Amino acid sequence: SIIFDPTEHPHRRYNPLIDQWVLVSPHRAKRPWQGQQEKVNEEQKPNHDPNCYLCPRNKRITGELNPDYQQPYVFKNDFSALLEDTPAPEKSTDPLFQSAQAQGESRVICFSPDHSKTLPLLSVAEISQVIKVWQQQLSELGQKYQWVQIFENKGAAMGCSNPHPHGQIWANSFLPNEVAREDQTQRRYFVEQHSPMLLDYAQRELQLKERIVVQTEHWLAVVPYWAVWPFETLLMPKKAHIKRLTELNPEQAEDLALMLKKLTTKYDNLFNTSFPYSMGFHAAPFNGEPNDHWQLHAHFYPPLLRSATVRKFMVGYEMLGESQRDLTAEQAATRLRDLSEVHYKEGK
Amino acid sequence: SIIFDPTEHPHRRYNPLIDQWVLVSPHRAKRPWQGQQEKVNEEQKPNHDPNCYLCPRNKRITGELNPDYQQPYVFKNDFSALLEDTPAPEKSTDPLFQSAQAQGESRVICFSPDHSKTLPLLSVAEISQVIKVWQQQLSELGQKYQWVQIFENKGAAMGCSNPHPHGQIWANSFLPNEVAREDQTQRRYFVEQHSPMLLDYAQRELQLKERIVVQTEHWLAVVPYWAVWPFETLLMPKKAHIKRLTELNPEQAEDLALMLKKLTTKYDNLFNTSFPYSMGFHAAPFNGEPNDHWQLHAHFYPPLLRSATVRKFMVGYEMLGESQRDLTAEQAATRLRDLSEVHYKEGK
Ligand SMILES: O=P(O)(O)O[C@H]1O[C@H](CO)[C@@H](O)[C@H](O)[C@H]1O
Ligand SMILES: O=P(O)(O)O[C@H]1O[C@H](CO)[C@@H](O)[C@H](O)[C@H]1O
Repeated sequence: SIIFDPTEHPHRRYNPLIDQWVLVSPHRAKRPWQGQQEKVNEEQKPNHDPNCYLCPRNKRITGELNPDYQQPYVFKNDFSALLEDTPAPEKSTDPLFQSAQAQGESRVICFSPDHSKTLPLLSVAEISQVIKVWQQQLSELGQKYQWVQIFENKGAAMGCSNPHPHGQIWANSFLPNEVAREDQTQRRYFVEQHSPMLLDYAQRELQLKERIVVQTEHWLAVVPYWAVWPFETLLMPKKAHIKRLTELNPEQAEDLALMLKKLTTKYDNLFNTSFPYSMGFHAAPFNGEPNDHWQLHAHFYPPLLRSATVRKFMVGYEMLGESQRDLTAEQAATRLRDLSEVHYKEGK
Repeated sequence: SIIFDPTEHPHRRYNPLIDQWVLVSPHRAKRPWQGQQEKVNEEQKPNHDPNCYLCPRNKRITGELNPDYQQPYVFKNDFSALLEDTPAPEKSTDPLFQSAQAQGESRVICFSPDHSKTLPLLSVAEISQVIKVWQQQLSELGQKYQWVQIFENKGAAMGCSNPHPHGQIWANSFLPNEVAREDQTQRRYFVEQHSPMLLDYAQRELQLKERIVVQTEHWLAVVPYWAVWPFETLLMPKKAHIKRLTELNPEQAEDLALMLKKLTTKYDNLFNTSFPYSMGFHAAPFNGEPNDHWQLHAHFYPPLLRSATVRKFMVGYEMLGESQRDLTAEQAATRLRDLSEVHYKEGK
């Protein structure tokens, strides 16, 4: 009988954070691609684009003027998906037609006044400023809302409609699906193992060394064992139990800036392109509970698979069955780990 | 105090089939779009393309020759994500590193020898042939595998790498995530309500009439109350309890062909384009159980939002928080319902 080889044989892996499986088909990387090619935009962007509604001093769609900001700048999303004073639908006990109230706020955060930059091209000091603003936003919005989702969509392939370096902050009066799930799974693990799941997980990855992408003094980024996207990563504290971004001491915060610079630089260096992704932080909700089962972490979900123009599509089987990937987490981690931490545009 | 209006106020709706919520932001449809534009391929395709590896008599990537098929034609996927004789990984009780065996087969089904066609451009008789082949495949593969996922990825936007009309059939030795979930939710509903969830749901939609898109003698297609994709639909039996495609009597099967023609025609007519989507069937697994809680149904997940070139991106907030939509299910259903059942290319 044949001996199982994870780099050869299809298998499933379990994601304990969302209680779901992923199908791994490592032999499938050999498949030729004749489908859609992504556009690559490699033209040098100006430092200020008069047509960009996120650049300092420019007019936005609403007619409002952006200030001449020098630091990260936050404003209310002109087309917020969530509104502050939304009334509640009528209560219903009908199991087939349930609706619920959704209040919230959507904000945009410009990471830098410089239109030509992206996270990996900012200095560690500039990224530290971004982290500081994220912390302020969390403190403010966490007073009023249970959940504050900090995220960035980067690149046209990830639905980003403006190349100016920016992210979003959506505050919710409820726990969204993904967060509610992670809350449950981490709680169950904590009850059973008496330790936060992702703190244990980080220790194991540090021992195993197979899936590490970047480590700094305080932070660890791995391609998780259960990764779905080809070069997905999970960023977590290395040793400390940290429930939220607002709990970071100045040293941990500055080291997180360094980690973000290194990780996003490696991403850009993989295919020598501004690497598209959606990223965001998950952390203890603002629900007045101790939340000792929560460990702060960030997910990076990048779509590219083989080159700057060939992405993985999560479609038919993935939508109707389960996620499927074409290389192992270990293979992806090795490729990312071996890349330079100096950005291909800054190297010379 | 303001009265709740579902066409104005953001709210959440509950999907009882997968036990998840979706955020509905109806006021957001007014948002201008400055992001990625999808390519539209409106050139007339030839009936036979010498470079297509799915056309009759052509050579495939493996060097194999396609037969001169006249009917739907099934063959083994040259780059199968699943293999028949995959060994099992070692058993482990480690909660953080779980893997499991995955055996299976992946097949391709060419719907027609005619390269220029798509499902809505086939005759009802030709679609009936496709359904017959689906049934045969289910009977055969269901002997060996617990789950057989029948699906179609249509259009480059949905990762389809070849415009020849075709779908896929992936057989699995396990229940994939989405199916395992629907199995649980339908079972729980059946225990509580003594009736299959989607049979009850169809009756309610037939009474309410707000979300109906197409009905035929035996079938009903609605934009479900909890739809995530802008023009997502759910296709189910109208009155009969049918657990699998293999149970259809000839009249129900032929009427399903008519339904598929009408529904996919409406999709094409929405933006006068060959409408991209992923679709597939969910039905009782082949696990030797009675499965009385299961009702056969098909999901259509189409990405387009505003036009042939502007799609909805399920990215940042959606990946990290929960799915979000920009128009209500009722608005989407009304637009689809009001469209002609004659295809825009066949109308003249
Ligand atoms: O098998 P295909 O059509 O080449 O590939 C397509 O469908 C598969 C099943 O949904 C996906 O895994 C691939 O990402 C997608 O590109
Ligand atoms: O708000 P944006 O950047 O215009 O829009 C983008 O991000 C949102 C949040 O992930 C998504 O809902 C949109 O589909 C996407 O295009």
